[in-house]
Amino acid sequence: MKQYAFGIDIGGTTIKMGFFHTNGELKDVWEIPTRLEQEGNLILDDIQNAIQEKLEKESLSIEDIEGVGMGIPGPIGSDGTVFGCINLGWKTFNVCQTMEKKLGCKVRAGNDANVAALGEMWQGGGKGKKSIVMVTLGTGVGGGVIIDGKIVAGANGAGGEIGHIPTKQGETQPCACGNYGCLEQYASANGWVKLTKKYLEEHKDIPSSLHQLENFTTKDICKAAQEKDVIATEMVEQLGQMLGKALATIGVVVNPEAFIIGGGLSNAGALILDPIQKYYKQYAFHSMENTEIKKAILSNNAGIYGAVKLILD
Amino acid sequence: MKQYAFGIDIGGTTIKMGFFHTNGELKDVWEIPTRLEQEGNLILDDIQNAIQEKLEKESLSIEDIEGVGMGIPGPIGSDGTVFGCINLGWKTFNVCQTMEKKLGCKVRAGNDANVAALGEMWQGGGKGKKSIVMVTLGTGVGGGVIIDGKIVAGANGAGGEIGHIPTKQGETQPCACGNYGCLEQYASANGWVKLTKKYLEEHKDIPSSLHQLENFTTKDICKAAQEKDVIATEMVEQLGQMLGKALATIGVVVNPEAFIIGGGLSNAGALILDPIQKYYKQYAFHSMENTEIKKAILSNNAGIYGAVKLILD
Repeated sequence: MKQYAFGIDIGGTTIKMGFFHTNGELKDVWEIPTRLEQEGNLILDDIQNAIQEKLEKESLSIEDIEGVGMGIPGPIGSDGTVFGCINLGWKTFNVCQTMEKKLGCKVRAGNDANVAALGEMWQGGGKGKKSIVMVTLGTGVGGGVIIDGKIVAGANGAGGEIGHIPTKQGETQPCACGNYGCLEQYASANGWVKLTKKYLEEHKDIPSSLHQLENFTTKDICKAAQEKDVIATEMVEQLGQMLGKALATIGVVVNPEAFIIGGGLSNAGALILDPIQKYYKQYAFHSMENTEIKKAILSNNAGIYGAVKLILD
Repeated sequence: MKQYAFGIDIGGTTIKMGFFHTNGELKDVWEIPTRLEQEGNLILDDIQNAIQEKLEKESLSIEDIEGVGMGIPGPIGSDGTVFGCINLGWKTFNVCQTMEKKLGCKVRAGNDANVAALGEMWQGGGKGKKSIVMVTLGTGVGGGVIIDGKIVAGANGAGGEIGHIPTKQGETQPCACGNYGCLEQYASANGWVKLTKKYLEEHKDIPSSLHQLENFTTKDICKAAQEKDVIATEMVEQLGQMLGKALATIGVVVNPEAFIIGGGLSNAGALILDPIQKYYKQYAFHSMENTEIKKAILSNNAGIYGAVKLILD
């Protein structure tokens, strides 16, 4: 194996570039802006330029590079076919073939959430394990399923789309995906805040510091819960129940060695993880009730770690 | 590769023996009784004897055999460790190592539901595909998840235990697994009959031919539904909704190429499959709403096909 490789995480605002030793060590990490003009046609050229600049600075050539791995914010087949990527303006094309022609080295790509899960398995909360499911609690609820060290990309590039587990019957508001009652509508940061606002509206008689706040975030809910606020505590319980049940459901499908919880909400730590664990145990199939539920640890670097792992496998 | 192999499906009453050409052709199939006495200690010897008798009859020796694959009615690790098997009286031991010593050839084993799913992928309803999820609607609800041609056995041997997807909140009767509200409690043959009896009890005012039957089976419900009986039709809808939703849930975890529906209830064909398809489409994540839902076709032979496939891979 050659000595170096790149792991790249393409986002809608910035592209995170990781320069790695192929022993897994992250040597350098930096960001370049994502230029969305011209239907995203500048993105791959910008990445190519950033790689070439880095190689010149390090007095290396593309011959010293084992390959380039990339996380893409959209559905992608295991052969590198991007099935359209709205965030970047991309239509359907094979991003690996295109990039291999530009760079003259091996290129691999995966969906960004799946690639982040692979990163967490390799060097993060799932280190030492081969089969994990990662759940990312951010603006939305993302996920990634890793079985025997490999991403389960899915026949339609939608493996690990666990934010869209059907969760509530009779929901009248649509999810971003068009369906009604998806997990993401309640367990994402946005969804949880909405759920809390609705609960406050329906329980004006229950005292809560949250009644006083015009607009609040998940941090405010967590802070209030830490101060034993009754409604905030109830909302943490509801979140734990929904997520614990979702993990129990995922469990009887793929029975991973561990669940890894990432995203902004996971920073609340035990406040969020303990109720998830409690309800997971309640709903879980008996043989897997002790499956570990751990916090993700690579934060925004999970994507570049996972991307480079695509090359090292 | 050698010319022949055995695929064996160990059940609680009989052991199904399949003698295969390694090109996949089933040459002969027969059954021997499962002797449960002496904590199931006679089972492996009986299988060994059956194999040796067959080899003598065919004028072959163990040298002509690529290996022996087995389906086991209990949780089993990918290395062949049986984690106790109540139906057979087995404790924890490595069934592959034990059997390899007895036979002097390669032995592989998997959980029977998973192995049946592998069989259906290889030579049954999923032929030509690499990633399928099989759901078996029998006395219970079983399942098997196959990704990239390989069984997802799970960290606790409980991958594909989809009969235990948490389905109903507030259930007061326990499932066989000890939990409350599992899919199996409503969508298995037993569960569906119970659900129908409860519905009849609660809707004595709605005319139905089922009111007249003291005891009825799923076949009676299906027959009544075919004759446009109002309650039977409603029960078919309820079954379709629960299963369609369960498949949509499994879909966002592993996004298979197809779902294969087996077990006794699947013999009702379109009567059952059409409502499952209808509700699947309603609940499914948009990119996978056209995933095929197909009937299993190998029936009770799925196990021996899947078992021998373990050897051929």
